Order: sequence, then structure tokens, then C-alpha cells
Amino acid sequence: MPVHTVKESYVDVLVIGAGPSGLMCAHALVRAGENVRIIDQRRVHLHFMAGHADGIQPRTIESYALADRLLREGSQMHMATFYHPSANGGIERTGRTADVPAPTARFPFKVTLNQGAIEAIFIDSMAAMGLEVERPVVPASIQLATDESVLKNPHSYATTVVLRNLAAEPDQADTEMVHAKYVVGADGAHSWIRKSFNINMDGAQTDFIWGVIDITPTTDFPDIRNRTAIHSHNGSCMIIPREGDVVRLYVQVDPSDVLDPMTDRVDKARVSPEKLLQTAKKTFWPYKIHAEKFDWWTIYIIGQRVAAQFAVHERVFIAGDACHTHSPKAGQGMNASMSDTHNLAWKLAYVLRGWADLSLLETYEFERRKYAQELIEFDKQFSALFSGKPRTQNNQDGVSHEQFLDAFNAYGGFTSGIGVQYGASPITNAQHQHLASNLVIGERMLPHVFIRAADAHPFNIQDMLPADTRFKLLVFAGDTGDPCARSRLQKLADELEMADSFYVRFGGRDPTQVFDLITVSSATKERADYTDVPPMCRTHWSKVLLDDTDMFGRAGGRGYDTYGIDSVKGAIVVVRPDGYVGVVASIDNIADLDAYFGGFM
Amino acid sequence: MPVHTVKESYVDVLVIGAGPSGLMCAHALVRAGENVRIIDQRRVHLHFMAGHADGIQPRTIESYALADRLLREGSQMHMATFYHPSANGGIERTGRTADVPAPTARFPFKVTLNQGAIEAIFIDSMAAMGLEVERPVVPASIQLATDESVLKNPHSYATTVVLRNLAAEPDQADTEMVHAKYVVGADGAHSWIRKSFNINMDGAQTDFIWGVIDITPTTDFPDIRNRTAIHSHNGSCMIIPREGDVVRLYVQVDPSDVLDPMTDRVDKARVSPEKLLQTAKKTFWPYKIHAEKFDWWTIYIIGQRVAAQFAVHERVFIAGDACHTHSPKAGQGMNASMSDTHNLAWKLAYVLRGWADLSLLETYEFERRKYAQELIEFDKQFSALFSGKPRTQNNQDGVSHEQFLDAFNAYGGFTSGIGVQYGASPITNAQHQHLASNLVIGERMLPHVFIRAADAHPFNIQDMLPADTRFKLLVFAGDTGDPCARSRLQKLADELEMADSFYVRFGGRDPTQVFDLITVSSATKERADYTDVPPMCRTHWSKVLLDDTDMFGRAGGRGYDTYGIDSVKGAIVVVRPDGYVGVVASIDNIADLDAYFGGFM
Repeated sequence: MPVHTVKESYVDVLVIGAGPSGLMCAHALVRAGENVRIIDQRRVHLHFMAGHADGIQPRTIESYALADRLLREGSQMHMATFYHPSANGGIERTGRTADVPAPTARFPFKVTLNQGAIEAIFIDSMAAMGLEVERPVVPASIQLATDESVLKNPHSYATTVVLRNLAAEPDQADTEMVHAKYVVGADGAHSWIRKSFNINMDGAQTDFIWGVIDITPTTDFPDIRNRTAIHSHNGSCMIIPREGDVVRLYVQVDPSDVLDPMTDRVDKARVSPEKLLQTAKKTFWPYKIHAEKFDWWTIYIIGQRVAAQFAVHERVFIAGDACHTHSPKAGQGMNASMSDTHNLAWKLAYVLRGWADLSLLETYEFERRKYAQELIEFDKQFSALFSGKPRTQNNQDGVSHEQFLDAFNAYGGFTSGIGVQYGASPITNAQHQHLASNLVIGERMLPHVFIRAADAHPFNIQDMLPADTRFKLLVFAGDTGDPCARSRLQKLADELEMADSFYVRFGGRDPTQVFDLITVSSATKERADYTDVPPMCRTHWSKVLLDDTDMFGRAGGRGYDTYGIDSVKGAIVVVRPDGYVGVVASIDNIADLDAYFGGFM
Repeated sequence: MPVHTVKESYVDVLVIGAGPSGLMCAHALVRAGENVRIIDQRRVHLHFMAGHADGIQPRTIESYALADRLLREGSQMHMATFYHPSANGGIERTGRTADVPAPTARFPFKVTLNQGAIEAIFIDSMAAMGLEVERPVVPASIQLATDESVLKNPHSYATTVVLRNLAAEPDQADTEMVHAKYVVGADGAHSWIRKSFNINMDGAQTDFIWGVIDITPTTDFPDIRNRTAIHSHNGSCMIIPREGDVVRLYVQVDPSDVLDPMTDRVDKARVSPEKLLQTAKKTFWPYKIHAEKFDWWTIYIIGQRVAAQFAVHERVFIAGDACHTHSPKAGQGMNASMSDTHNLAWKLAYVLRGWADLSLLETYEFERRKYAQELIEFDKQFSALFSGKPRTQNNQDGVSHEQFLDAFNAYGGFTSGIGVQYGASPITNAQHQHLASNLVIGERMLPHVFIRAADAHPFNIQDMLPADTRFKLLVFAGDTGDPCARSRLQKLADELEMADSFYVRFGGRDPTQVFDLITVSSATKERADYTDVPPMCRTHWSKVLLDDTDMFGRAGGRGYDTYGIDSVKGAIVVVRPDGYVGVVASIDNIADLDAYFGGFM
């Protein structure tokens, strides 16, 4: 018999759970060059995973590092359609509208794709960078240091996690003791990490019960490829078109049909996909819908809960379903989960590199918990409207089409992810909001097309703001053909080069590793030269943009106006590594930026 | 000693040469499911091949099956800039304009990428379909049948090619006798196939000599990332920006400096990249340009020649540089070469499948040789302008900026590839041009954004017209919400289903394998249903389009107007498998389509 010695190891970040939230975290960290491991209890990854979450909202597409492949593989929802009871007892269409009522969305649609395929995009990209998900591996115990000096040292291995390899050979050690500086629990609604630290889920379960079936339908229903909300005399139904010809139906279920009267819990034996389709058929009448088989099905009670805390001593974090549960019908779950770790990853990188203090990590709970609470509030109102009875002649208290449509539009910023706004904190400072009146500080940077001065190549500015852990300094310098604007820009360049400027102090030997400085001129492409800009403000020929249209006037132009920036005064817009506007400052006063970066770096 | 028996084999199409033209051919054929082999004399493929052809014009991007990757990897040229002699003896900018003066171009720019990377896109895609380039393999002999009955039978193996494997092991047979139905010689300017059949190159050599250097420059020249034509007192120069920071310079060379007076041929020993850069420096003055090293360099005399024939008995074809040589500066070479086989491949597939008669292959030479002749004509005028002396005070006969710019714009349709028009033939019939007055029959289908009726997803119609060997039948049916338009569409559907219609006669058991029928309605997205269209005219929910904008009005709309199609009368537009408009017909008279398809199928 071999002697089993417990393997012991060290890692900077241990991510537990390889769903969308955990993968987004590990992917961002490995891309940033950080030392990270990720484990998952599932034995294999299913590239096609029927069912589960499937809707990607516009903001997630914007921020998602791998949008190309997502757009290639997914289905797009552009139109939302509404049906209400008709006079003959059936249903009739009451209206069509944009599925994403958020006019500034760069991608004005939602993408649907099965969760396995979404995960595969991260997994393949991580593999190319040398990081694999370790599976099937589960955590068996976790210990957090209690010594203040250990907890306060951002570089200490403050946690110890014992991992168990479920696939270990009989003669192989199946446990490993991992010393991690930081642990991220992205381990789902039944989070083991959350339970280990006795973190409460605040909120309650609703009375609304829904069934879900994924089918390839035969139907004469004309809106089967739109996101459609049907309110009928016979219950409600939501259609979500999926990749290929697959369609997901959310079907409202009468609690008395599925609850076990003894336990008051859902009894899956009382329902079947065939029964759910039968219910849907009644809802669709007079339209017909058939399906030969079911790719997947489930039934759930809507719970609306938020974890009481998202972090323990800024060393252990929970993210995704581990910290918020809500109804899936507005397509928020996976998006909120990925956005959690999109918010967290760069902050971890900053602390690990010694660029920022542990306190930066406090902004994770501050920003994401507030968002989760707003999400639950929205969900309460939206699911009540959706699950409620429709207004009819006999039920004047029901939900009217107009009410539903109003809510649908009012929540557009929210359901699209576009309207998320982070409150004031060391990394979000709205003091000089007036200098860029249409760029809401704390919201994501507005997409807009600018052209490169050197070659008139049009770019959406979001493509120049990747989540590469750098702060982007967008210098809106006015007309760089004008000597006055040029001398202001030269003065800025001189100040940035001073030893006590934030650029030199926090940028170290190569500031371009920390800051990406992009100059945006209001000069026209016919006469602007990228060489007009001081070398300091163009570290490469590609770093000077013009607020002008492309050569055929098809895109771009009026960017200063769109952002509410004065074309003479200009402004410096600082975009955080996660794409949110952090601070806006005057070109003539870099002291504000010294103070901003000095606040957390 | 082993006995060497000559291996004998059979193949439908043998492609000789794996440059862009041969690869385009083999790729198209293997994607169409045809039996094809491709050989090349080079031992390995260089993914990065410095120098060589590098400019992809807008039409090639449109028709290129793999544009996604091309756009990801290449550099884009949007702006063209012109410099002329200045009063102080140096140069000054005289203007900037769109690099692609072709307003209907879908991609209003050229893409530059080294030839190895362009080839790799085809090679990787072919490999995924199981086809590899055989290398290093050269043809040793070729024989074409002389028996008329063999030549006239499209399924006979009318050619015999002996191949020699240059890398054969000593104990391995190094020759193979291949019986091929068709042979495509895409074997370059010194084409072995062309010489084997004694095909003449008509045309002549010019007196213009140019040197080429690929460098990563250090410079204060503000237009180094634009396609720039410099005419100076000290000679001419053309800048072509490339991927990354690389720039290609074409430098005019004085014949007396490089010609060997004994032979009157270019003597490469008399020139060097350093000398070419020295010449360029004089042209750039007062701007400075430096380079540490040269990625590649060459020198050439412009030759302008077209092969006297492009095909031998419609069994052996030549394509690409094998049939036309001209100056590289307008970026035409590789594009013309790929377009040759883009034109040929689907025709070969039709004949191999027994869908069309051998005579269809006659349209290859008819269409492509005429184009090559036009290309040489254009090249003569353009290179004379470019290589000529600039107009100055002392030289009033020189080329003025205005002359050059006029020519640049006048030839825009040509240099972009957008303006290529094929003449009347069995596959190009302009009889009913007036039914779609802005879609020029014989030109490529105009790009335009339509939305899908079923889900309001916007698409550029070109993306629905891939080179998948199918003829596309675009039925512009008017307002499908209108009963009158619907009954006309129903009548069309009924006629198409008749046993003697072209659709049934040539479509066989599954017409969707030969024809892709797409209905374009002028109804609006708020009320149009894809189910309004008769099932015959929507073989799938995705096959009904609307002439309307997307949900935010960002793209689409006014497609009938753009195409010059009456929104009441409508029209059927037939797009050939290579993307060119073949014929336009009335919805009420499918006899015209019966006649069109009967002419070659």
C-alpha cells in the first residue's frame, strides 16, 4: 500500500465553480497574466447543454471579450411581441416593439445560445492560454486566517481550502490542501462557499410557478421567432427563440396542479413536458403548436433573494447564482453572474500586482450587491405583471397590454444591462460630470464610432476599451489643428511627464502597461494629421482618433455632441478596466486625476 | 530493388498550383462536394510569406467565402492621399479621398495582408473539409484526348497528367499517372500548362521599372498609414500600409540604373533595398523616413499581357497569373486571379453533376478574358499616369494632381472590382433590365440590408447569396399583406410547382439543392407575418425578408427603390452562384425563367 501524503500547494486565486460566472473570472485573470486555478464538480463539460440559462443581454455582449464567436453561434432576438385575449376567447397580437428598449445599446438585440456553448467559448480561450478547468473536484473544507496581520497583508495566503478529486484512482491521493490568497465562490444557487461562511440569503419565494420546455415546434403562429409574451384566458406563456429552429416556452403552471399538499413543495412527478405542452396549446389557441420531442424541461418556483454579504474580509467572495436568485424570464441570471466577476477580476489583479490596496476589493460588494438588490426589485414587479391575469371585460383589475408594455419599456435600461450605474466610491467620482454631460459617470462608456487619424479606419470606441486591466485615458483635446488647443495638449503632456503626476507615479517604468492614453481630436479627416499630437499623447500611430465620419459618411461623427463634451474646452474621460466611466476631468487640471488614482492606487 | 510500377489514378478536377487562384478553385470545389486534387511545387506553405501580392479589393471581400478571418487578420486602407511637388523643391499634400471610389461597395476599403496568410485561410478551411495540398509535386507531362467523342462527353477522363513527387523517398515511386476529367492550370506567370499548350501571351513589356521594399519605418510623414501616391521632382513613390506597422513602398527606378546595357534586362545586382530606400528618401523630402531592416524586396518591369485563350477544348483551363500579367500598384493581380476561379468553379460543378452542358464552360473564357483585356487597358493608362513626370512650372506636359485624381476616381469601379460587368451569354440575359433598373444585369448583386420577417433580424442580402452553387431566386413580391399581391404570389407558387416549370425540371427531387427561393416583401415589420407567404415561397421561416429598417432604424429600408424595382409590379431577380445578376423576370411570366435555365441546364 502506498503512503498517502496530502499534496499541498499555493495559488493566488482559486475559483470554485466553472459556470459562466466562474469562467468569466478565471478567463479574465489568466488573460491578465495572474496565477489562478478553477475547479468544478462536474465530470465533463457538455459543449451542448440543453436547457439552463441562455440569454445574453446587450451589455454582456459589449463587455464580453469573446463576442465574435458568441455572435457567430447564437440566435438573435430583435423583436418583442405581445398577445392578449381576443373577443373570440383566443389570443390576438396587441403590438410589436424592439426587444431591447435601450437606444444606446451597441448591439440592439439579445443573443440566445445554450449554456454549454457559452461556457465552451471561455473554456477554449482559456485552454489557448494554458488554463484548464480541474474536474471533477469539490472543496471539502475552507479556512480563513483569523490573524489580523495576515488578513491585512494582500499578498498573504489567507485561505486554506482542501480539495477532493472525485476521479482519483484508488492508489492516488484524492485530496489536496490549497493555500490561496483569494477564493471566489461561483458555485451556484446552493453555494457551498456561501453556506460555509453562513451567509444569509435575504428575500422570499413567490407563489408563481413556471414550467419550461425546449422544443422544435411545428406551428402556424407567426411570432414563433420573436420574444413573445402571451397573456390568454388560459394562462400566460413566453416564447424565447433559440439557435437553429429550437424554441423555449415558459409556461405558467397552476400551483394546485404541481404542489404536494403535504410538503407544499413542487412535486415534479405531478407534471411532465407533455402536460406543459398541453397547457401551452391552450394558451396559443386559435394558433396550433406541436412538437415531437423535448430537448429539455424543468419546473421552478420563482425565488427572489440576495446574499447578505458578497465578501468575507475581502479574501473570500461569492458571485453569480451564489449571491442572487430571481426569475429567469427577463434573461438576467447569467448576465448578472458574468457581470459580477467582470467587476471583480480586474480588482483582484490590481491588488495581486500591488497596484492597489485591499480596500479596492470593497467596491465589489458595494457595486454588485446594490445592483443585485435592484435586480430583485425589478424582478418582483416584472414577474408580478407577467404572471398576473390579463385585463379583460370580466377582469378589470388584470394587467393590460399598455401596462405590460410600459413596464417592458421602462425596464429597458435594466433588462439590457445598459442602465447599470455604480454609485460614488473611490473608483467612481462624479464631481465633474458637467464636462461630459451625456456620459453618465458610473455607467458603461457609451459606444460611438470614431475614425483613426492616421488611416481613417472607423472604430467603435468600445473596441478600444477592452478589459485588459488598463485604465483608459480618453483625452478629448478639441481641434488639434488649432495652435491654442495644441498648446493646451502640450501642457497636459508636460504635466503627465512630471515625476509627481499620477501617470508617472502609478505607471512605473512603462506607463502604457497601466494606462492607455487615446487622444480624440475634433479635426476633420481631410486635414488632421496624427503627427499634430505631441508624441506623449500618441504612444503609437493608432492612438489618435478623430470625431468624424468614415470616408463614405456611413458611420461616426458628432461624438463630442453625443458625449456632451464641449469641443473647445474638451475633457479627459477615464474609463475603468471594466468599461465603466470612472471619472471625468478638465484637460487643464490633472490634480483631479492625481487625486482620483491616489484614492485607491 | 523494389519494382517501380507507375501509380495510376482518377480524379474529376486536378488543380495545378496552390496560390490564391488555385486555392480559391480547389476550396470552392471541395466545398461543393466535388472530387478534386490540388498540387504545388513548393515544399511547404509559409504562413507568413513576406512580399508578393497583398491587396484585397472590396469585391473580393464580398465574394470571398472566408471574409471574417480576412477582416480579422488584415489591415484596412480607407483613405488615399496624394502628394505633388511643392514650391520649395520638396512635396506637399494636394488632397485626400476615399481609397475605394465606389459608393456601392459593401466594404468601402481594401484589405492588405501577406499572401501566405491569405493562402492559409483557404488551406485551413480546405483541411477542415479533408483536402490537403499535395506538395512538392510538379506535372511532368499532360495529354489531352483527341477523340471527339471523348472530348464531347463531359464525364470522360479526357486528360492524362503525369505528376512527379519531388520529395519521394529513394525506394518510393515518384511518379503518378492521373486521369482527370478537367485540369485547371493556376501555375503562375510562367505557367507550365500554358506553355504545354503553346498558348500565346498577347501584349508587351513597358519601360517602367519599379522597386519594392517592405519595411517598418520611423518617419514624420503624416500619411504613412494611408495609400499614398507621391509625385516629386525626384521620382514617384507609392505607400501601401500593411498589417501591424509594416509599410510597403513602391519606388520608381531609373532604367539606366538597373538595366544591363548588354542584355537590356534588369540586373538585380545593380540595385539593393538600401539603394531603393535611398531613392525613396529623396522622394519623401522634406519628410524623413528610416528603416532598420527589410522584410522583403524586389524589382520588376511592368509587363502587360493577356493569354490568347483561357481554355483548351473546355477540358484544360488556365487562371490567374497564368493568363494575365500587369502592374501590381493598383492592387489587381491577386483579385483578378481569385475571381477567375470563383467564376470557373461553380461551372465545373454544374457540368460534373450533369446539371449543365459542356457549353457552360465556354462562358469562363468569354467572361474572364474580356475582363483581363479591360484590366490591361486600365493598367496601361493608370501606370502611365503614375510613372509619368509630375506637372510643374518647368514641365507643363507632366501629370497634374487633377489628372491623376480624375483617373483614380474614374477607375474606382474597376479598381474596387465592383464595376465588373459580364456581357450577354446564356447565363447573362439583360432582356428585362427595366424591371430592376438599378441592378445591372451582369454585375454583382448590389448589397443592401433587409430584415427577416420572422424575427426582424437585419441581414445584408449578400450574406444570403453565398457561393454554394445554388441559383438564388429573389422574389420581390410587393406588399404581401395585400390580397392582390398575395394572389399573384400564389399563382407564381402554383406555376413553379407544375411538372414543366424550370423549378421542377431542373430542381429534381429536392429543388432547394439547386435553387434557393427567397421572398422579399415590402410590408412593414409591425404587421408583416412570414406566414403570409405561400409555403412554396418559404421553404424555411428564414426565407422571407422585409424591405424595412431594423428595430432602431439603423440599417435597411428602401430596398425596392435602391434596386429600381416597382413595389407593386415587383420582379424576380436571379443571382448566379458567383453572386452576379443573371436575369430579371416578371412575377407573372415564368416562361422567361424556363427559357433562361433551359439555355444551359
